[in-house]
Amino acid sequence: MAYTPGVADPCLAISKNSEDVYKYTMKGNTVAVISNGTAVLGLGNIGARASIPVMEGKALLFKQLGGVNAFPICINEKDPVKLVEIIASLEPVFGGFNLEDIKSPECFYVERELKKRLSIPVMHDDQHATAIVVSAGLINALKLAGKGKEVKIVIQGAGAAGNAVTKLLIKQGFKNIIVVDKKGILDRDQHYEDEFKKELAELTNHHNFKGPIDVALKDADVLIGLSGPNSISKSQLSLLTKTNPIVFALANPIPEISIEDAKSLGITLIATGRSDLPNQINNVLAFPGIFKGVFQYGKKEITDEMKINAAKAIAKLIKQEELNPDYFIPRVFNKRVVKAVARAMKK
Amino acid sequence: MAYTPGVADPCLAISKNSEDVYKYTMKGNTVAVISNGTAVLGLGNIGARASIPVMEGKALLFKQLGGVNAFPICINEKDPVKLVEIIASLEPVFGGFNLEDIKSPECFYVERELKKRLSIPVMHDDQHATAIVVSAGLINALKLAGKGKEVKIVIQGAGAAGNAVTKLLIKQGFKNIIVVDKKGILDRDQHYEDEFKKELAELTNHHNFKGPIDVALKDADVLIGLSGPNSISKSQLSLLTKTNPIVFALANPIPEISIEDAKSLGITLIATGRSDLPNQINNVLAFPGIFKGVFQYGKKEITDEMKINAAKAIAKLIKQEELNPDYFIPRVFNKRVVKAVARAMKK
Repeated sequence: MAYTPGVADPCLAISKNSEDVYKYTMKGNTVAVISNGTAVLGLGNIGARASIPVMEGKALLFKQLGGVNAFPICINEKDPVKLVEIIASLEPVFGGFNLEDIKSPECFYVERELKKRLSIPVMHDDQHATAIVVSAGLINALKLAGKGKEVKIVIQGAGAAGNAVTKLLIKQGFKNIIVVDKKGILDRDQHYEDEFKKELAELTNHHNFKGPIDVALKDADVLIGLSGPNSISKSQLSLLTKTNPIVFALANPIPEISIEDAKSLGITLIATGRSDLPNQINNVLAFPGIFKGVFQYGKKEITDEMKINAAKAIAKLIKQEELNPDYFIPRVFNKRVVKAVARAMKK
Repeated sequence: MAYTPGVADPCLAISKNSEDVYKYTMKGNTVAVISNGTAVLGLGNIGARASIPVMEGKALLFKQLGGVNAFPICINEKDPVKLVEIIASLEPVFGGFNLEDIKSPECFYVERELKKRLSIPVMHDDQHATAIVVSAGLINALKLAGKGKEVKIVIQGAGAAGNAVTKLLIKQGFKNIIVVDKKGILDRDQHYEDEFKKELAELTNHHNFKGPIDVALKDADVLIGLSGPNSISKSQLSLLTKTNPIVFALANPIPEISIEDAKSLGITLIATGRSDLPNQINNVLAFPGIFKGVFQYGKKEITDEMKINAAKAIAKLIKQEELNPDYFIPRVFNKRVVKAVARAMKK
């Protein structure tokens, strides 16, 4: 391969026309699974070396489920400005960057800057894959609840996932959303150091409610937990509307609320992050198909429209007559998921 | 793999003891083939994207010949200080860095700084693999010439390869070496902007000869060309000693001198970089075995002693009775080469 005079030809072709890199190298079907290990799973800031097993696992899932080449890149750098420089400089070999387990709010800056600079798709998985799969689950849960976009939604957690879920729901026409972080409801009168939290406060909570999560939960239709284990009590949960409430308790492996408690209150529409319970919200439903699709259709970015299409495509895989409270999200190893998500990247 | 609760265990183990990364991840058998595309093959500064085909080819050779996982990393960064920062930050996933096609003199700085900072083996292939294979060839050519370490050697070219070949020959006990660059002989009285060229001038040319290459070639036993095509004339070549001169003309695909001209002068001990001529000096004789060996024996650096051992091991693969002017360097796909070089990394 190398070491034959022949290797000079593709090199020269690319040096003349840099887009030829898609013709002569693996770039067009290769994604980097990138982390700096600052927000791994439920483990937190454990560093780049300790994040490798997760990134290796993700790379395998890309290949096995999506047929996409993926390589783990774990970077010893916590400073977001330097991290952007490093990741941007690695662009030549890769057709896309899948960011993973970078702590918030730095992750928002890193993703935004990389998108500005690069002409390859960049996606922070913890944000957007989660937002897509939550949206898919919500579409189907609302069908079962007999409700529409007027529902009142409480999003518990203003980190990477909370931020992206909120924004993608707004783009889909959900207007009545309240976001709550550890200090309580995000409202317009607080001062936020974090520009991304400020933006979230401005986009939501149109009645400008203030106070603890209890205020937000009063008569809410949907609770989406994207925070930490056991952070919601049974009495708080009982504040939800009595008519077909929907609860996504996505902290993993220990959800925000005891599923037994939720059931004892008569709540049936429940999703979690766990593989041993019905309706598992798992990013793997989204990311292999997304990159398979952007590579297939030569897309240079992943737009909100593409994400919403992906959410609808995932939801649609369960037929109306199959839908029930224990099955409103496709299972992780349903082979039709990757194809459906990839096709959703076409537009 | 990922996405089972089980992935947290190796992550936690590594976060407690970072050396456990060798137990739980691919790090211990994975090398990055790294370039910034500033000095590709005979193509020069063609950029990171255009260098990918060469790095992909090298990665394949690592795997096919050495069984070492290798991944191409082509970096959009020419500044050597920033390049060091970027490469150093990528250390977590990789067990070794094989630098390629980085222009001189920046390549010396980049390699030196990375070696200082990192506890994984770092090798600039264009320097050290070349030095090893040239040394191996020279050991055998000198046997055929019936000469020893007292020979007068002229090294034409003071770039990456010229630098490393000179230093490794000195370490092996060759004392009579003159290095020549485009401006002529490197001597002690010149002022050198480039600290690495200054060092080379101080290490060589003990009689402090000055002037063009013709001065150096007078009665020299060995000419090692590491420069450019057709840069030596027949009349210059005729200045070499008449007693069994040795000529390595390694510019590729067009050597420094016409091989026909050399033969017409009665020179028989000739090596080139070409696969269609006898005695091909090819880095692939060294790099797969080197990394196979350092991984096998858990070495954190590649010392001069290891390089010299590798050169001797390569030379020894040709038995005394097989040695002849058309066969003093093992062929590129001789399967015993990788094993012999890997074993040479043990000490």
